[in-house]
Amino acid sequence: MEASELCYTSLRGLAILIQRQEVSPVEATHAVLDRVEKFDSQLNSFITLLRDEALTQAHAAEQEIQAGRYRGPLHGIPIAVKDLFYTKDIRTTAGSKILSDFKPAYDATVITKLHDAGAILIGKLNMHEFARGATNASSLIGACNNPWDTLRVPGGSSGGSAAAVAAGLCFASLGSDTGGSIRIPAALCGIVGLKPTYGRVSRNGVFPLSWSLDHVGPMARTVMDAALMLQVIAGHDRHDPTTRTAVVPDYSVALTKDIEGARLGIPQEFYFEHLDPEVRNSVQAAIQTLERAGAQLEEVSLPLSKYAAAAGRIISLTESAEIHEQFLRTRSTDYTPEVRAGLLTGQLIPGTHYLKAQRLRSLIRQEMAAALRRVDALVTPNVPIPAPRIGQTTVDISQETVDITWALSRLTRPANLAGFPAISVPCGFTEGGLPIGLQLTGRPFAEATILQLAYAHEQESIWHQHRPMF
Amino acid sequence: MEASELCYTSLRGLAILIQRQEVSPVEATHAVLDRVEKFDSQLNSFITLLRDEALTQAHAAEQEIQAGRYRGPLHGIPIAVKDLFYTKDIRTTAGSKILSDFKPAYDATVITKLHDAGAILIGKLNMHEFARGATNASSLIGACNNPWDTLRVPGGSSGGSAAAVAAGLCFASLGSDTGGSIRIPAALCGIVGLKPTYGRVSRNGVFPLSWSLDHVGPMARTVMDAALMLQVIAGHDRHDPTTRTAVVPDYSVALTKDIEGARLGIPQEFYFEHLDPEVRNSVQAAIQTLERAGAQLEEVSLPLSKYAAAAGRIISLTESAEIHEQFLRTRSTDYTPEVRAGLLTGQLIPGTHYLKAQRLRSLIRQEMAAALRRVDALVTPNVPIPAPRIGQTTVDISQETVDITWALSRLTRPANLAGFPAISVPCGFTEGGLPIGLQLTGRPFAEATILQLAYAHEQESIWHQHRPMF
Repeated sequence: MEASELCYTSLRGLAILIQRQEVSPVEATHAVLDRVEKFDSQLNSFITLLRDEALTQAHAAEQEIQAGRYRGPLHGIPIAVKDLFYTKDIRTTAGSKILSDFKPAYDATVITKLHDAGAILIGKLNMHEFARGATNASSLIGACNNPWDTLRVPGGSSGGSAAAVAAGLCFASLGSDTGGSIRIPAALCGIVGLKPTYGRVSRNGVFPLSWSLDHVGPMARTVMDAALMLQVIAGHDRHDPTTRTAVVPDYSVALTKDIEGARLGIPQEFYFEHLDPEVRNSVQAAIQTLERAGAQLEEVSLPLSKYAAAAGRIISLTESAEIHEQFLRTRSTDYTPEVRAGLLTGQLIPGTHYLKAQRLRSLIRQEMAAALRRVDALVTPNVPIPAPRIGQTTVDISQETVDITWALSRLTRPANLAGFPAISVPCGFTEGGLPIGLQLTGRPFAEATILQLAYAHEQESIWHQHRPMF
Repeated sequence: MEASELCYTSLRGLAILIQRQEVSPVEATHAVLDRVEKFDSQLNSFITLLRDEALTQAHAAEQEIQAGRYRGPLHGIPIAVKDLFYTKDIRTTAGSKILSDFKPAYDATVITKLHDAGAILIGKLNMHEFARGATNASSLIGACNNPWDTLRVPGGSSGGSAAAVAAGLCFASLGSDTGGSIRIPAALCGIVGLKPTYGRVSRNGVFPLSWSLDHVGPMARTVMDAALMLQVIAGHDRHDPTTRTAVVPDYSVALTKDIEGARLGIPQEFYFEHLDPEVRNSVQAAIQTLERAGAQLEEVSLPLSKYAAAAGRIISLTESAEIHEQFLRTRSTDYTPEVRAGLLTGQLIPGTHYLKAQRLRSLIRQEMAAALRRVDALVTPNVPIPAPRIGQTTVDISQETVDITWALSRLTRPANLAGFPAISVPCGFTEGGLPIGLQLTGRPFAEATILQLAYAHEQESIWHQHRPMF
């Protein structure tokens, strides 16, 4: 198999080859490391490349597998993670100058879980500084570029994760999602990104942006690959009191094409307003694909979702200002101006307004819960526009000029406020060749449902087979 | 039986007489109504007396019981509640000028439950304006007086509830407790007051002070009476999403004198500092009583409890400022100066400080949970001082002059922050004849444990038999 072919194999496909000992973890690791060195100068997706550490782990995995001690589908798989996840003795910058020399004393729980599953960590990925942004244009190492058009942003904050996965620089990644930071870059880079239910995945050892909104989840090229990653990272963690003890089902077993009778809710308000026409067309085609596959469509009403941007912004600004209080006092000039301005704004928000936003959030959650009692999932666009250009600060939609961050995150924020699981799955391309994502939102702890719906769509479409030009 | 004797019968004692039809609900209701009319001018504990409504209900109860349809231990029992609980078409002032004409369109869930259990509501009781204070000195109808010394405060905010129960003007009451508002007046008036676990009792239809700290609970002359009240009001309520579905045990059945082997935690920090010497002596005697009854004493460490006052104040000020935002804008001059000043302060607290207080709260809760894994309950004083004089704004303890509200609430606040159940039970009197309370704090949803410990103490002591001079 050619190296580029190997690098674009799905995680699941590579796992089969590794289990059969047809491909060695060392070979796979060399292939992605070489590819990173060859192409990442065009993407800027890696903050830290762990060549030696990865090869050491790959050799160990190879030996274990040869000795008959195969651990499971992540064993020997080269992955990379957003540089927000603590890695013991390996610098963890959060995309910031302030943490540019920070070497945590311990691994994040999800890093330990991936390590125990046999995954090989090849590096730490670019991200929007401290996860406070949706473009990945502000970062310690500069903007990350979209593999489908390197003059455009990959989306953020987990931009490096999406770019690296899309460009075949690793087989899967982890991101974090406070207002859409997994799903936005997944959509703009044409991969799968899953924000699980609040409490499903540990956040221990993940530098926080906004506790009540932060979620950790997988990013991968296929729905099956995302399911395999989620399988390993999900579950209760005594080091994170917000995690829940709800049983973790077998996510990959549930992935069949059969979605006969599944009820899909199409929101009548907000989610289909102010869309780029190409996004609208692709999403509508995706909905028809799901309907042809046997799903029933129902109209649902979610008028309060339009307040998610305001409520989410107040909550996230206030919580992040609290988290950054000491850095703002001592290292203020080490922030990028954009992120510093946001955090300083957060310091000025009265507690009463924060509480008002949390009350609004309860109403948004209740409304979404009511809709999801009638249907199994909500189907919406994920991002209203394709990837904007680097440096672009506004976008024109429906004859209005709007802020780019607001535009990118407006459809993803409601699921963060509700804490409900949501996935972005590729559903088409613009004429200019930019990916478009479909969003499926499910009930609390029903990740299996949205994974299956996404899988059914994926099997009936061809979008995940497209590759950027590398 | 003499009327005053009847009025001082325990709720449980009256219930037996009513069930046996030896006393009629009408007779009992007349007795307390007459007593209110005779003595309440000295106490000022009633904001609204419901003479006609109560007698109508009493006649109905009498007929039901005569017809053999006895509902249970609250059937035909005259009670009165803090004027914070919504009563349909009956004015509910929250002790404020602003709500002096407010007639709710529905009953609070706990009012409905008491009504369904057959209790007779004879009136709505005095309270500190909007529950924002610990003295009950600021109120629509003026200060409430302590029945043991009418120149002194009954404590607050549920001061009218404690005064009325202590003076035999009703057989039990409901209070609310945000920083000690049930337990403080219970201690200062020599009755039993229980703040249940957060989520144990519905707050639907209870005018909020601070959602994350507010609790509703019973106030009564004996532990058994408090248990019977809690039995009726506890449980999940679909109108209050913060209530939990945990099973409600039979609280009165658990009340035996046998506490052999119960492990009691004596905090080594904070709770026994800055105490009035008479309070210290009474509490130490109570602890010895419990030890003689078979309990084992263990030292526990709760150093973070000393931050409860600061954290609780920040949280409560911010949450109440949000709740009162509209009134502050439109009715500012209708608040008493003290309460207005507090609410205006709350409007100035930054969201970051509110969050810092909530983080501190988590640590206080974790520390208390850790202590309560080692022991069954914590034993502490309830209020460090006996009832202060009306108008007194400071108190001298341990050679320091401190704010009266701070002094009154410093030992009760930790249980509000933790959300754990805590009870105040009479444990003695000062030489000047003022009651002293013992506080027992238990694990979440272990109200039965602290009720039993309080009951055992009560059975071994004589304090609950004392009566004020009316």
